[in-house]
Amino acid sequence: MLRSIVRISRVCQSLGSLPYVQTQLGHPAVRTMSTLPWPFNSAPRDFSLPNSSWSSEMTRLYEHYNSQCEVETEDGEKQRGPWRRLPSYNRSLKYAKGGVYLSKFVQSKARLFTRNIKTAGAAFEYVMFINKEEQRSVCIFQAGHLLEGPPGHVHGGAIATMIDSVTGTHATYLSGPVMTANLNINYRSPIPLGSTVLLESCMDKKEGRKTFISCKVTSADSSKLHTEATALFLSVSVSHLLGM
Amino acid sequence: MLRSIVRISRVCQSLGSLPYVQTQLGHPAVRTMSTLPWPFNSAPRDFSLPNSSWSSEMTRLYEHYNSQCEVETEDGEKQRGPWRRLPSYNRSLKYAKGGVYLSKFVQSKARLFTRNIKTAGAAFEYVMFINKEEQRSVCIFQAGHLLEGPPGHVHGGAIATMIDSVTGTHATYLSGPVMTANLNINYRSPIPLGSTVLLESCMDKKEGRKTFISCKVTSADSSKLHTEATALFLSVSVSHLLGM
Repeated sequence: MLRSIVRISRVCQSLGSLPYVQTQLGHPAVRTMSTLPWPFNSAPRDFSLPNSSWSSEMTRLYEHYNSQCEVETEDGEKQRGPWRRLPSYNRSLKYAKGGVYLSKFVQSKARLFTRNIKTAGAAFEYVMFINKEEQRSVCIFQAGHLLEGPPGHVHGGAIATMIDSVTGTHATYLSGPVMTANLNINYRSPIPLGSTVLLESCMDKKEGRKTFISCKVTSADSSKLHTEATALFLSVSVSHLLGM
Repeated sequence: MLRSIVRISRVCQSLGSLPYVQTQLGHPAVRTMSTLPWPFNSAPRDFSLPNSSWSSEMTRLYEHYNSQCEVETEDGEKQRGPWRRLPSYNRSLKYAKGGVYLSKFVQSKARLFTRNIKTAGAAFEYVMFINKEEQRSVCIFQAGHLLEGPPGHVHGGAIATMIDSVTGTHATYLSGPVMTANLNINYRSPIPLGSTVLLESCMDKKEGRKTFISCKVTSADSSKLHTEATALFLSVSVSHLLGM
């Protein structure tokens, strides 16, 4: 078990962040390492890379931020740029006990909520970038046809899911393992199914164990505000990650 | 189109509620008639009825509330009880235009977010009951293995999705067509994957176009509080439902 913890810590350090971490604590909702590679699979699929379902707008935005992950110096040398792309996988850690009620069957088939549809383009297509210096993140999100709530528009719960995922990953990047304690979401205008939107999050403040993040969901050209939210996360120890 | 509106109104009246309604308005997030039967299909599947994936706890709670939908008088006559079961379908209305960016392809394949997984038990299994006299509702929710966030636990976004669905349906029952304007969610303790929980909502107040609902998510025996939330909905006209 100790080796597992060490391995997790190393992977986290190599990513430069702890994409979010949750367990059973008897208090605020827990976060998991949703973007951590599944350690028993030598070649996990990274869902944050372009596929044929991506719209031209989604691809253009991806290329815009991806090009700033590596920049050239005046001497022509390549070096790390201001942005970093975060990978995204379809499972979180299996180390944790996963709740007293959880059967082995359920645990073995579990899948990250945003990655539970295998068909490309049908549900959540997204990629997230982090700007360490400015302590902000951006997520490019294309909403598939299986996310419907209002006729022709994205379900409020699917929007909340993306806000939780993005702000939680961002908070973990800033503060290490965290749990979601509060999400406060104001819905301003509906998002048409099939469209590409931007989720931009920034850190408001840190106070002890608390990390406060705010998030805006806008149209791809940032001209229209769809949703805005604040989120509060509580830091937890690594042992919580393992359900110990 | 007028005939469509009349038909929709009749269906809504026959249900005794307008399970939630949303369109594109350029302001707060819209709600749809998520539990309205698809009018072009003569035998839509009602997903709120028991299936083989339901746990014994889910089935027991269903039978408890379902038995109170019809009661016997002292004379042995049957009459409507205090509770009503609400059906749940996998599509919302197709009448609405569905957003300026929406292609016919996307629109034709769209599916209600909570019903986007066909395998029974894999994702959202739920049934909702309304108590008209007490103006409260209860939803029995079994969280499948594809809703994972934290290792072995339900994703915060999936919990938000159920809260949005339940409070939105409740608000529509009380106030007619509404849109979600705000969700404020406090996560108190994580929900193990595979477990059955209760979502209980009650109306706090109505002020003009605003309906305020609060919601608690607890363990099946109500002993443990998992999540609590408040939600604000704005009433809209029926024409908004059609994207006019």
